[in-house]
Amino acid sequence: MLFTVTVEVMPKASVADPEGATIARSLDTLGFPGIAQVRAGKVYQLSLEAPSEDVARSTAQDMASKLLANPVIESAAITAVARTDTAGIR
Amino acid sequence: MLFTVTVEVMPKASVADPEGATIARSLDTLGFPGIAQVRAGKVYQLSLEAPSEDVARSTAQDMASKLLANPVIESAAITAVARTDTAGIR
Repeated sequence: MLFTVTVEVMPKASVADPEGATIARSLDTLGFPGIAQVRAGKVYQLSLEAPSEDVARSTAQDMASKLLANPVIESAAITAVARTDTAGIR
Repeated sequence: MLFTVTVEVMPKASVADPEGATIARSLDTLGFPGIAQVRAGKVYQLSLEAPSEDVARSTAQDMASKLLANPVIESAAITAVARTDTAGIR
């Protein structure tokens, strides 16, 4: 079965995020008031073959800790697991 | 009220994604079989003041179309809206 697992990799709260800070300033300049904070991270949609949703989830968790995220400065979270017929969601 | 809106910005399906292709090859090399496809995008956690969840959502949609995503090659989606007491989720 083919699953698409979405993994979010964000900088940890204690780590400076200059990209997010720049976006926050730009949004303020563009006329959006009330921006408290912006954090910028990466998102990966992994399409993979797995026998069940649980296996797909744990495989993606393993991939995240081995390749996708740097655990010193980033935290990874699986935000969605969906069964798909073809690779890619959109 | 303070809301944290999560916006995912992904390359459109018709657009080449060399970063995702490289990650897919790397995962295969690392010994993860069954990878059909990897797509790599950006995720933004916007902490903003808004009177209601609906307003927070529509403001974030506006921000995405004006600054966060390039509509020619990327699509933006709001994946979560959460009320928070302090800026930042994690």
